[in-house]
Amino acid sequence: MSTGFFDGIDRVRYEGPDSDSPLAYRHYDPDEIVMGKRMEDHLRFAVAWWHSFAWEGGDPFGGPTFERPWHPQDDMGRARMKADVAFEMFEILGQPFYCWHDVDLRPEQGNFADNLSTLEEITDYLGEKMQGTGTRLLWGTANMFSHRRWMSGAATNPDPDVFAFAAATVKGCMDATHKLGGQNYVLWGGREGYETLLNTDMGAEMDHMGRFLSMVVEYKHKIGFDGTILVEPKPQEPSKHQYDFDVATCIGFLRKYGLEGEVKLNIEQGHAILAGHSFEHELALAAAEGMLGSIDMNRNDYQSGWDTDQFPNNVPEVALAYYHVLKAGGFTTGGTNFDAKLRRQSLDAEDLIAAHVGAMDVCARGLKAAAAMLEDGGLEAALAERYAGWQRPEAQAMLDSDLAAIQARVLDEGINPAPRSGRQERLENYVNRFV
Amino acid sequence: MSTGFFDGIDRVRYEGPDSDSPLAYRHYDPDEIVMGKRMEDHLRFAVAWWHSFAWEGGDPFGGPTFERPWHPQDDMGRARMKADVAFEMFEILGQPFYCWHDVDLRPEQGNFADNLSTLEEITDYLGEKMQGTGTRLLWGTANMFSHRRWMSGAATNPDPDVFAFAAATVKGCMDATHKLGGQNYVLWGGREGYETLLNTDMGAEMDHMGRFLSMVVEYKHKIGFDGTILVEPKPQEPSKHQYDFDVATCIGFLRKYGLEGEVKLNIEQGHAILAGHSFEHELALAAAEGMLGSIDMNRNDYQSGWDTDQFPNNVPEVALAYYHVLKAGGFTTGGTNFDAKLRRQSLDAEDLIAAHVGAMDVCARGLKAAAAMLEDGGLEAALAERYAGWQRPEAQAMLDSDLAAIQARVLDEGINPAPRSGRQERLENYVNRFV
Amino acid sequence: MSTGFFDGIDRVRYEGPDSDSPLAYRHYDPDEIVMGKRMEDHLRFAVAWWHSFAWEGGDPFGGPTFERPWHPQDDMGRARMKADVAFEMFEILGQPFYCWHDVDLRPEQGNFADNLSTLEEITDYLGEKMQGTGTRLLWGTANMFSHRRWMSGAATNPDPDVFAFAAATVKGCMDATHKLGGQNYVLWGGREGYETLLNTDMGAEMDHMGRFLSMVVEYKHKIGFDGTILVEPKPQEPSKHQYDFDVATCIGFLRKYGLEGEVKLNIEQGHAILAGHSFEHELALAAAEGMLGSIDMNRNDYQSGWDTDQFPNNVPEVALAYYHVLKAGGFTTGGTNFDAKLRRQSLDAEDLIAAHVGAMDVCARGLKAAAAMLEDGGLEAALAERYAGWQRPEAQAMLDSDLAAIQARVLDEGINPAPRSGRQERLENYVNRFV
Amino acid sequence: MSTGFFDGIDRVRYEGPDSDSPLAYRHYDPDEIVMGKRMEDHLRFAVAWWHSFAWEGGDPFGGPTFERPWHPQDDMGRARMKADVAFEMFEILGQPFYCWHDVDLRPEQGNFADNLSTLEEITDYLGEKMQGTGTRLLWGTANMFSHRRWMSGAATNPDPDVFAFAAATVKGCMDATHKLGGQNYVLWGGREGYETLLNTDMGAEMDHMGRFLSMVVEYKHKIGFDGTILVEPKPQEPSKHQYDFDVATCIGFLRKYGLEGEVKLNIEQGHAILAGHSFEHELALAAAEGMLGSIDMNRNDYQSGWDTDQFPNNVPEVALAYYHVLKAGGFTTGGTNFDAKLRRQSLDAEDLIAAHVGAMDVCARGLKAAAAMLEDGGLEAALAERYAGWQRPEAQAMLDSDLAAIQARVLDEGINPAPRSGRQERLENYVNRFV
Repeated sequence: MSTGFFDGIDRVRYEGPDSDSPLAYRHYDPDEIVMGKRMEDHLRFAVAWWHSFAWEGGDPFGGPTFERPWHPQDDMGRARMKADVAFEMFEILGQPFYCWHDVDLRPEQGNFADNLSTLEEITDYLGEKMQGTGTRLLWGTANMFSHRRWMSGAATNPDPDVFAFAAATVKGCMDATHKLGGQNYVLWGGREGYETLLNTDMGAEMDHMGRFLSMVVEYKHKIGFDGTILVEPKPQEPSKHQYDFDVATCIGFLRKYGLEGEVKLNIEQGHAILAGHSFEHELALAAAEGMLGSIDMNRNDYQSGWDTDQFPNNVPEVALAYYHVLKAGGFTTGGTNFDAKLRRQSLDAEDLIAAHVGAMDVCARGLKAAAAMLEDGGLEAALAERYAGWQRPEAQAMLDSDLAAIQARVLDEGINPAPRSGRQERLENYVNRFV
Repeated sequence: MSTGFFDGIDRVRYEGPDSDSPLAYRHYDPDEIVMGKRMEDHLRFAVAWWHSFAWEGGDPFGGPTFERPWHPQDDMGRARMKADVAFEMFEILGQPFYCWHDVDLRPEQGNFADNLSTLEEITDYLGEKMQGTGTRLLWGTANMFSHRRWMSGAATNPDPDVFAFAAATVKGCMDATHKLGGQNYVLWGGREGYETLLNTDMGAEMDHMGRFLSMVVEYKHKIGFDGTILVEPKPQEPSKHQYDFDVATCIGFLRKYGLEGEVKLNIEQGHAILAGHSFEHELALAAAEGMLGSIDMNRNDYQSGWDTDQFPNNVPEVALAYYHVLKAGGFTTGGTNFDAKLRRQSLDAEDLIAAHVGAMDVCARGLKAAAAMLEDGGLEAALAERYAGWQRPEAQAMLDSDLAAIQARVLDEGINPAPRSGRQERLENYVNRFV
Repeated sequence: MSTGFFDGIDRVRYEGPDSDSPLAYRHYDPDEIVMGKRMEDHLRFAVAWWHSFAWEGGDPFGGPTFERPWHPQDDMGRARMKADVAFEMFEILGQPFYCWHDVDLRPEQGNFADNLSTLEEITDYLGEKMQGTGTRLLWGTANMFSHRRWMSGAATNPDPDVFAFAAATVKGCMDATHKLGGQNYVLWGGREGYETLLNTDMGAEMDHMGRFLSMVVEYKHKIGFDGTILVEPKPQEPSKHQYDFDVATCIGFLRKYGLEGEVKLNIEQGHAILAGHSFEHELALAAAEGMLGSIDMNRNDYQSGWDTDQFPNNVPEVALAYYHVLKAGGFTTGGTNFDAKLRRQSLDAEDLIAAHVGAMDVCARGLKAAAAMLEDGGLEAALAERYAGWQRPEAQAMLDSDLAAIQARVLDEGINPAPRSGRQERLENYVNRFV
Repeated sequence: MSTGFFDGIDRVRYEGPDSDSPLAYRHYDPDEIVMGKRMEDHLRFAVAWWHSFAWEGGDPFGGPTFERPWHPQDDMGRARMKADVAFEMFEILGQPFYCWHDVDLRPEQGNFADNLSTLEEITDYLGEKMQGTGTRLLWGTANMFSHRRWMSGAATNPDPDVFAFAAATVKGCMDATHKLGGQNYVLWGGREGYETLLNTDMGAEMDHMGRFLSMVVEYKHKIGFDGTILVEPKPQEPSKHQYDFDVATCIGFLRKYGLEGEVKLNIEQGHAILAGHSFEHELALAAAEGMLGSIDMNRNDYQSGWDTDQFPNNVPEVALAYYHVLKAGGFTTGGTNFDAKLRRQSLDAEDLIAAHVGAMDVCARGLKAAAAMLEDGGLEAALAERYAGWQRPEAQAMLDSDLAAIQARVLDEGINPAPRSGRQERLENYVNRFV
């Protein structure tokens, strides 16, 4: 009944940190309790259908390197085989969630009616496969960037017919996500931006995008989808400039169109780096605004200026990410998606399993370190002490006063504040006790 | 009566494009009419006191290289000599505007009372010097980043006494700006950000910054200052991360704190580049949001990751910047500040004059090219044609409908849009006919 | 007899700067004499077969957008049709040169024998087409980066059989280049580098690459190919790190393997930018070392961290590039290749023509500005004056002495040099008189 | 007898990983044996005099923040106090080495004779202080970038008198280094580069730099200094472009001037990052060329485009660095210099100690992880397996043959290599077992 693709690879088990097995969890024990919750329920790992099953290993200078039994991906039979392999991998890994774009699941058909009917067909098939397994759908999304019709944008296309095609497509994907019990619905606008300002009416395009997103929210409520609508920031690539540049830009956009209470963010480490931010920055900012939804826990090569989508492997960095997630209360509908792909030289089925095992272990170590820091409370205490002055009543009163009153007080009292150490290195040392 | 600093350098005159004089305007003729307005009134050039008179030529690896007669800048006598030299330069250049930070004008005194009284003293002196000249103040601002008291922020400092000192300082600078007839008041928050998230409460700091800016707006109205309040985006440097990262971030911030109708942006080419944007992007975005206030027309070296603040010298780039300014209606209270400094090897008084002359000529060429493009109308026509579909009633109706209705229509009508060329290279060729 | 692809587009003529025709040369007049030589003979423009004819408009997030009559590119008939279209374009543009990779010309066959025979077949066809036209081959090269066999390198592959396949391939391409009278043979090592040092023996790989390049040089002499062997620097992409990182790295490499007298460089603007250099830097360095061979005159978007390969459009930048080319004596076997591709939204045949016309005009303006600067001699004179001290005999004598003698002289003579202005802004203004 | 600066801070002791003391070594135990050698003898930690004692906390936008008892640094008395504090810190930390520039030790005097005599005076004082302590000098160097005389370069200055002053200065610093038993002499050319090519004769400047370095080598032999001469790559900052851009550039430079057997490299993590490389890359390349001399183990913020010189805190990154050092045989005369400075908000003496303690612990963990990987041998074994084909006699024979022979063999044998997995993720997982 097995596809045979993973022949010779057993279900991956937790064996503890001393195991030298190449395919064992050494840190990820789903049932281990961390801060009162099972580790699996904290991390909520998801596999990305596109990178793991649909991507063929090409890059801008090279063609496919993977030769999977379900290639070429041009008929529904091989689409089902791909699904069979995917669910075998979920079982091997004990992976609780997965994510998809419509075109990952089945081939683009070239017209909307067939796109819709084949999406219904393949998602029915996924629904059957989910029966009896613990695997759930973290989120669905529409790929509105690969086919040539989207080349100048989806919701922001100069042609309103493309907007219409996009709206129809998202409705189909939201329906399918809802049908499968998806916990979120994601929008990433890779073509919602521009190549050149010379041919772009930025104001009109952003208004169209704002209206589109409002329609998505309205439709969510109409069908009773109680998952979260998420947008995913990325500064550029494929477009020269994308409207969802980074977390701050997305939040400003949501606020402009009155959506800040309806939409949250799906934040990716790699996209943060490409936008000139640390991942922690993006997480902390979203958390401060109450809009931290879900994460894509892939890393970007620090020396590459494009999206490298690598599996995470740096525990200290991952620990700081989960620190912000935990501090914000942890995930609700969100989770840890690996929007990560194998390097194109990693041809073997074992590479695919090993990459996920390694990444899950890195995340587990990071989560435990973050939890330990929070339980120890050292960072929180230092923060409280640093800002303690703002708890004084006169400090709060000052915020309700005005420049003239404050200036008078500074003159009267001869206020002349002395700097105090920010203690950065000491805090960094503290963190290193836990990672 | 002259300070002698510019001895041997005459007033710079317009001599036309064929002049080979090293110190003549070849393109900037203040009285030339461009799109119905004098060129001087379009460009509204300003000299930055800090770079041209206060900066001593140091960098992170080297000490001062300039040895000006008014160095060291530690007493009020030399502060006045510096002002004398500045006004001589304004006259040589025929420069209509200038800008300052408080600490550029007179030495920091180490306490607020003396800071205030010396600021009043020196700005009185400036006021006298402005009499009978055409020179006006484009904007004033407070330097709240150089003295060690600001090392952890001004409005965002963990110590509320620093917030108080900042509020008192800004009041003093706003009063002085108002006294001198300044046309704008600028806030740039070089230390409003963080070095490490480990010691930072980002949410609280942003709230304090929002409240601070509201106080500034309230005070503007209280004193009847009818200039514009401007904030200036910059992503980082000196801080690891600054809250006013870029135009989109600032706009989101203003909207969050209800200030989008009260505050505009002062946008710098170099800061745009450091934030990963083109200058046109930042201008076009601010214009689309109605928040384009003023510009700092200095360029950043494309290969340097820090703020190089160089005089502009690339006409095609400058032309596209003015294209967006003109398209947005041109400057009202804003202008073209050269937030630019000599290279530290450019020691001579003649270098200082030549740098401004060259920059003004580059801007004049850019402005004329931009005006010619607008008058020709080629870009506007192409834009109108590209988005023409959105003028159809059914397109507008679609924006008022919902996903389900649109999907039904796509299915019914078999909508399957065909891509059309974006014609980017043709538009770029068009621009090159004008620059 | 025409393929019909360019129907409605006439041969592009020089019409002078005031023409507003979208498809006329306004600056490029092949027969205009610049510094004693025809403009065509200075610039030696070449079309890149791959970008203009083989690339289908895909990017890492999207499939093809162009739908050319010769697609799909999987048989020899369509390969010939592609050649027919190419030669029609050369005639429309009056383009004197072209360049190819083997796989641009005909489909990869999957084995070496068929690769070789089809390459011979198609290059015979090209040879026929070249008859009676003025079009010549600037250079040929082997694509050893797209097919999956090259995924871990060609000459630097861990598998010596890949090295063998690469050597066989290059021999075939050199033979074909020689047959067609090519003026250079280029090697670009997109996969000669690594994804991770963890699996890489860098020392061994560089030795293999050095030996490979030596074989190429030996074979050139063996067959009497009197063109130039060129290597092309690029820092990364597709590999995480490429051995031919930049000009300095390539020169060091050539010197290590004793090839500095045999091999020159093909330098691309975009690759320079990606390596953190200005294009002028790379050109000036290669010129200083006598290794400036040829150029790829495409630009990279300054905000994009990957190879954007855009047609040049900034005259001041292009002028500085040609300034270094002319100062080094101009091209001998090299030329100006447009390693540039249309934006993927530029679908029309007219876009393809317009892009080349605009680029050629930009280059013509740049060349003329560069020539004017050299004829005026202002930069050369300033340079001579700045370094004049080194012409003094005691300066030259110092270079032949030693630290102790120099220290003694400094002490004896109390040498205490005073800095002199570098006059950067004045020189920049000077350049702006010409561009 | 103590200066009192570190009052209340005891000698830092090794307390083991479970210690929660803020100022204890948890991983650095100098006497622990790692791969047969004491950890102290592996790591050879050095303190940088400039960052720890001379830097006052300024940055391009702000003045000093530290107010040390030895400020202002303008007389020899305070220079001695600074030395007293330094040696107290070495004792507290048990730091075996230190490094200096001449101007860190005593104030620049404005003329060479006084520069020399005060350098002799202060280094005599250091020599006395070293007596009876275990502290040794890792390296000395001359600061030829801060004073305005160096603004246009030292050895590459257009003025030969500056070359002379530089030569005299280096002789003085080499003599002082030799006198103090220094183990290396370093040259970093922060001003050996250019601001603009418009005023630069790059070929002449590099020749002067080459001759200068040869003189240094000649003088080393003349005085019998048996330490290593090191050059330190950096791509830019303070200059727009520096000639010692990166490791590959330096190696090419050394080879050009015949110095590859005489000079090695001092490689800094931060400079590697600024040049677009990983630190491992730079180390591995230098090792492959036999030119790995010493390291500056400071990190650069990945989001900042200037030299941030932070103390290292990421163990996985540090482990990979030491992996390459150990694989190359470990340090001989070189060591681990912390070319790292406190953040300018870290005002307290305790911050200075804590920063070093944390950094030393991070390095100790990294070293032990690297040693464990080497002892386990997993990476070496994988490498040997991957390149095994090159051990076959026919592979080696191929390297001695030519393109024609190889092509014939490919045709005859139908060589058609199949790709094999690069196993990157599996190797990354392997590394994560040790860090």
